Amino acid sequence: MASVAPEVEKKEEEEQVVNPWEVSAGKGGIDYDKLVDQFGCQRLDAPLIDRIARLTGRPPHRFLRRGLFFAHRDLNEILDIYEKGDKFYLYTGRGPSSEALHLGHLVPFMFTKYLQDAFKVPLVIQLTDDEKFLWKNLTVEESKRLARENAKDIIACGFDVERTFIFSDFNFVGGAFYENMVKVARCVTYNKVVGIFGFTPEDHIGKISFPPVQAVPSFPSSFPKHFSGNDQLRCLIPCAIDQDPYFRMTRDVAPRIGYQKPALIESRFFPALQGENTKMSASDPNSAIYVTDSTKDIKTKVCTQHCFLSQKNYFQTVTCFQLILVCVRASTTMMHNSGSSNVREHARACPLLVPICSCTQPCPSFSP
Amino acid sequence: MASVAPEVEKKEEEEQVVNPWEVSAGKGGIDYDKLVDQFGCQRLDAPLIDRIARLTGRPPHRFLRRGLFFAHRDLNEILDIYEKGDKFYLYTGRGPSSEALHLGHLVPFMFTKYLQDAFKVPLVIQLTDDEKFLWKNLTVEESKRLARENAKDIIACGFDVERTFIFSDFNFVGGAFYENMVKVARCVTYNKVVGIFGFTPEDHIGKISFPPVQAVPSFPSSFPKHFSGNDQLRCLIPCAIDQDPYFRMTRDVAPRIGYQKPALIESRFFPALQGENTKMSASDPNSAIYVTDSTKDIKTKVCTQHCFLSQKNYFQTVTCFQLILVCVRASTTMMHNSGSSNVREHARACPLLVPICSCTQPCPSFSP
Repeated sequence: MASVAPEVEKKEEEEQVVNPWEVSAGKGGIDYDKLVDQFGCQRLDAPLIDRIARLTGRPPHRFLRRGLFFAHRDLNEILDIYEKGDKFYLYTGRGPSSEALHLGHLVPFMFTKYLQDAFKVPLVIQLTDDEKFLWKNLTVEESKRLARENAKDIIACGFDVERTFIFSDFNFVGGAFYENMVKVARCVTYNKVVGIFGFTPEDHIGKISFPPVQAVPSFPSSFPKHFSGNDQLRCLIPCAIDQDPYFRMTRDVAPRIGYQKPALIESRFFPALQGENTKMSASDPNSAIYVTDSTKDIKTKVCTQHCFLSQKNYFQTVTCFQLILVCVRASTTMMHNSGSSNVREHARACPLLVPICSCTQPCPSFSP
Repeated sequence: MASVAPEVEKKEEEEQVVNPWEVSAGKGGIDYDKLVDQFGCQRLDAPLIDRIARLTGRPPHRFLRRGLFFAHRDLNEILDIYEKGDKFYLYTGRGPSSEALHLGHLVPFMFTKYLQDAFKVPLVIQLTDDEKFLWKNLTVEESKRLARENAKDIIACGFDVERTFIFSDFNFVGGAFYENMVKVARCVTYNKVVGIFGFTPEDHIGKISFPPVQAVPSFPSSFPKHFSGNDQLRCLIPCAIDQDPYFRMTRDVAPRIGYQKPALIESRFFPALQGENTKMSASDPNSAIYVTDSTKDIKTKVCTQHCFLSQKNYFQTVTCFQLILVCVRASTTMMHNSGSSNVREHARACPLLVPICSCTQPCPSFSP
């Protein structure tokens, strides 16, 4: 998943830009209603949230109640499958562009943990170290190191060790995964990726080659050791709305290569400390609270920036402050539980770290 | 390596087209002198051939004496290395587009076997089943099957079992190999591949993604199990001149990512039975003599087509007929030696077939 370079979806009224590498908006903040229409996804309405609560027998996650996750694609089909007693799997990921995760990065992982607990389903987590090598000025070694560091923060969220597979692209791509990448690539023209991602002829071909890499974890056949014999298993992807372009492309290709379309459940952005017009950026330390920040660091950053408290009508259902409080509280709980001074330390020596360094081992317990 | 689609190097005087997917010429046949100038490679002259003979202590191969291999890049540097007592390795390959190899396909392999025997060096052979999936209307499974079938014919040429690694891209790509692919991709813009390969915006992104796959066997670090600790080992690529665009690109990128440029030794084309204006095509059974053809098949094909016997000035140093005779004789010898009815049967149960199905095994004996 992502956060750098070019400029895509033409600046709406010269203001709103939302794509995997750039998020910015005018003074009014991001117009999510416009995004839903522009992207062609569906609104996550109250009846659907009620249905999730009924099926899982637990109250909907606060990110659902408060409208942080606000859009989806085919979530109703996933619930149909679950209601019939069939299974699906979850896919999320992270582009490792910084030493530590910040609060915004935690949103999809905290929400995915809730989904895994509520539905008792397998989860694959893709660390796109190849993407960060391609978009940022990093070495392969540094990209791989950041992926491993970020994996620790992801693990700290508390995923089910028996049902979770974390992998780095540089380590895992090959075999069945590579076959699916090439299948997807054959279905997508250069014109098409220019339309979706806004690439220019001056961009390097690594960028043009990358979208299939993020597409294929949507297909269970990319993980033959984990989903053997379950090639039609449906996949649900919790992600922020800026990742939608990748999966529009993936859903377009899926039926042409005999696979199921992935379903999506999509969130608003976690605001930067500077205000609501963009999202927390891993590249700008002042915009973000990292999970390696101490309680004192967090207090200082929030008090110094203090920007957003004076702004109104921030989200429709939750103020920025409330949202940050939720995440800070969750992080603090993690620290408290482990007696650590920050979230990162919570993750040391977790068995989930094994898969990212020895991904060729069979995982007998990882079945839907 | 290759043989299908688009049109690149603008048709010179509306006649000569030479690129990895198309070879055609006007009535005068292919103008190799023009090609050398156009591609910017070097002529393989008599002093260089003499030097090879002197260094290896054996007469130069007939493909050298007769000018079938006629061009090179940095071959003199490879000879310098050898003269100093240092090592290099060989890289060649095949795009598995047909059930069996034909005589034209045998040329680089027969020549590579001579080089391996003469210099006693390791050899990697890439089977680009991914390329054939991307360019031709094949399934992944069919591409992989053709790669395995073709491997048998390649093995029949008699490579040194201890010094040869044959791999299919679909099986082997990943890990260090994939890291190098992505490094190369970051150095090449879309404009650049359009200039080299003539892609259009309507081409799928699989084509744009492929050139790094053929580039990276040039770098020993792509094979960490085979060349561990020898990341600067030089590589020599015997190939037909139509593959030059891939390695122009590779040589341009190599120093930018800290690697040595591969050297090349480049051949003319093996003519189709219809005449000298194009090369034998695996896609057209009447143009080619396959290694699965029986002696009777071969006689019939040659007598029916008989095209070239009436033509003069075919090659500067060898007639087409002589050339085919050389290959037919070599094939017949292989058949004779193994008591088989065709070349293919010679290759059954060879240990070289093991690497393409279990490429993750370490190869302790494979060292330069």
